[in-house]
Amino acid sequence: MVVELISVGTELLIGNIVNTNAQFLARKCAELGLNVYYQISVGDNEIRLSETIRTALNRSDIIILTGGLGPTKDDLTKEVLAKVLDRKLSMDMHTKQKIEEYFKHTKRVNVSENNWKQADIIEGSFVLYNENGTAPGLYITVQDKHIFILPGPPSEMIPMVDLKVIPILKDLSSDTLVSAMVKVCGIGESMAETMILDLIEKQGNPTIAPYAKLGEVHFRITARAKNEEEGKRLLRPVIDELKKRFNDNIYTCEESTTLEECVISLLREKELTLTAAESCTGGLFMSRLINVSGASDVIKQGYITYSEEAKMNLIGVKKETIKKYGVVSVEVAKEMALGAANHGNAELAIGITGIAGPGGGTKKNPVGTVCIGCAVKGNVYAKRFVFSGNREKVRELSVVFAMDMVRRSLF
Amino acid sequence: MVVELISVGTELLIGNIVNTNAQFLARKCAELGLNVYYQISVGDNEIRLSETIRTALNRSDIIILTGGLGPTKDDLTKEVLAKVLDRKLSMDMHTKQKIEEYFKHTKRVNVSENNWKQADIIEGSFVLYNENGTAPGLYITVQDKHIFILPGPPSEMIPMVDLKVIPILKDLSSDTLVSAMVKVCGIGESMAETMILDLIEKQGNPTIAPYAKLGEVHFRITARAKNEEEGKRLLRPVIDELKKRFNDNIYTCEESTTLEECVISLLREKELTLTAAESCTGGLFMSRLINVSGASDVIKQGYITYSEEAKMNLIGVKKETIKKYGVVSVEVAKEMALGAANHGNAELAIGITGIAGPGGGTKKNPVGTVCIGCAVKGNVYAKRFVFSGNREKVRELSVVFAMDMVRRSLF
Repeated sequence: MVVELISVGTELLIGNIVNTNAQFLARKCAELGLNVYYQISVGDNEIRLSETIRTALNRSDIIILTGGLGPTKDDLTKEVLAKVLDRKLSMDMHTKQKIEEYFKHTKRVNVSENNWKQADIIEGSFVLYNENGTAPGLYITVQDKHIFILPGPPSEMIPMVDLKVIPILKDLSSDTLVSAMVKVCGIGESMAETMILDLIEKQGNPTIAPYAKLGEVHFRITARAKNEEEGKRLLRPVIDELKKRFNDNIYTCEESTTLEECVISLLREKELTLTAAESCTGGLFMSRLINVSGASDVIKQGYITYSEEAKMNLIGVKKETIKKYGVVSVEVAKEMALGAANHGNAELAIGITGIAGPGGGTKKNPVGTVCIGCAVKGNVYAKRFVFSGNREKVRELSVVFAMDMVRRSLF
Repeated sequence: MVVELISVGTELLIGNIVNTNAQFLARKCAELGLNVYYQISVGDNEIRLSETIRTALNRSDIIILTGGLGPTKDDLTKEVLAKVLDRKLSMDMHTKQKIEEYFKHTKRVNVSENNWKQADIIEGSFVLYNENGTAPGLYITVQDKHIFILPGPPSEMIPMVDLKVIPILKDLSSDTLVSAMVKVCGIGESMAETMILDLIEKQGNPTIAPYAKLGEVHFRITARAKNEEEGKRLLRPVIDELKKRFNDNIYTCEESTTLEECVISLLREKELTLTAAESCTGGLFMSRLINVSGASDVIKQGYITYSEEAKMNLIGVKKETIKKYGVVSVEVAKEMALGAANHGNAELAIGITGIAGPGGGTKKNPVGTVCIGCAVKGNVYAKRFVFSGNREKVRELSVVFAMDMVRRSLF
């Protein structure tokens, strides 16, 4: 089945927003084994929109339209589609009632006459009620074509797709797709891909798709099968092979688990606390961990020691160490980690010192040089990295590798 | 002139990446007064790509293709366009030399035969040399149509557009477009838009386009004129009116200045230092400021005081204050700011304490409640906010409003 995605909205055409809807829908289709051949963005313009829909009806089996379902005159996706299909558009009382309930629930009072336009539905369509807004989605079948109209705001579209559209699409896809995730960190992206290049090159069923994230690589393995059981059987040897190759670089095989969640949950499991002294990352390491709900069980405090004085005064780094080895050195990183652990009364501590750039690089320590110390119950080790990229990237990579060092200490 | 953007790449169709190229190009076209009517994403497939190009040639004046210029067999944008235009593709020795220089410069040794495919150019095209990669761009005119082929990676495409494509597009646009930026913070997005709704509704030339950013709103004002001077004359009254309405909510009228840069440069100008004690933001406030190159002049250290003990031990918040007012209170926020200033030996300090969620909300302090204290040379004031959104959004909004409080202290 060939899918075509049509995003409707002038805000896309003038570059006001990035089309994340297209990516979301494309990924969902890929996971279901449905081929997206075209993605179109078009404005709220009757002539161009109807031409786009007609073209899609000629060449694709499933058409998913997003956007243009608002209450204003500009919003005309439903009206144009009704015209193209030569079907009537009329108010659906049940839909109107649902919208009224939504207004009541969200305590909205200033409801204009225009809002009831959103209760109009195309003759013969199946209504996808909207739990997060007023515009309902519609599902229409025309001979062997399947058309979806969905609201544009991601906060309304995404839950509607997850709960209502995917079950319908699953039935349209003849095979079952079963997928698994392997998330890797602590090695470079190209290195990670090279390590399984032979598997990627000879892939068939299952497929292996790498997604690069700063400092991490996520591999999605997808098997196409007659049923779930067969799919899982096909996935098993590939997952095992990836586990063998990446070994302890794998931090999770859970789709929804992030690296920071993995670190926090390992700390909670072992009932250990973590602190940090951060120089070039300036709080970014702690900040990412504290974004995990429940981090307060294992993180109590942290130090931003950007200047040499702060490193000495706050956490007791020795002046001689800085003088002898330089402030960006494994020796200082170690003293930062140990000092943070002692002063912060924590079992584990990270110390990060580096040159994020653009200035400050030397021949010995070029821009991107970052030393990370990791103290675990009085013991300490440190690593020196030379990251490439701008200031922001160097700082973010430092945080990922520091989290990875904590993770490895907790095995 | 009507523009059509065509993004080529299977990674878009399977949802592997978000199409940020389309947004970038669309915005640039809008700024030049060129109308983008269609944005298409299509895979590396000869039949579908040539059909897409033919359609674009029929309905648009300027066609900008991105992607599919790599060295592998899959990359076939140039080949397909040559076929559609019925033009020859042959190696350009000057382009080959440029690619050789790039390899030399980046010290790349493993150059395969395939790489020289990138030196092939379409007969009669103008070469846009690539300073950041090996694939050159091409500019081709066919009767009254203008076609650009650009590399897909944003790091190569963006500088090529800024330096080489925009000067050509400017000549194609008959009018001059002159634009200005007004960046506002410290008031909600919808509030900001409401404050100038009358101006937006009656806009003609110049136009006013709001771009919402978390905690900020940026207004781009664009005038279409015969020349630069007339454009500036048209902009003046609109900018003045915005300045009158938003007053000190405006933090900059510079396109490239961010809020954190504005804060750092104000601090540098006045030779003042800043520190912070952060609870729910956990280092995010300091981290964003430290991302500005040169922040080390004005930021020496900071405190992440996530637990009550840390607030007391590290920066001397009084136990009685926490007990009497609760840890999320303007009183504690004030003591955090004053304590951070004293312990950190800084003229200015911020204290942030709040409930980022999803848990921890009470009737008195629902999720999203954040108290921010700002100490300036021994004086202190604090504000209480109730932000909506998830944990990440609440934390990021806290940081924006804290930066705004610092900025206002520095007038």
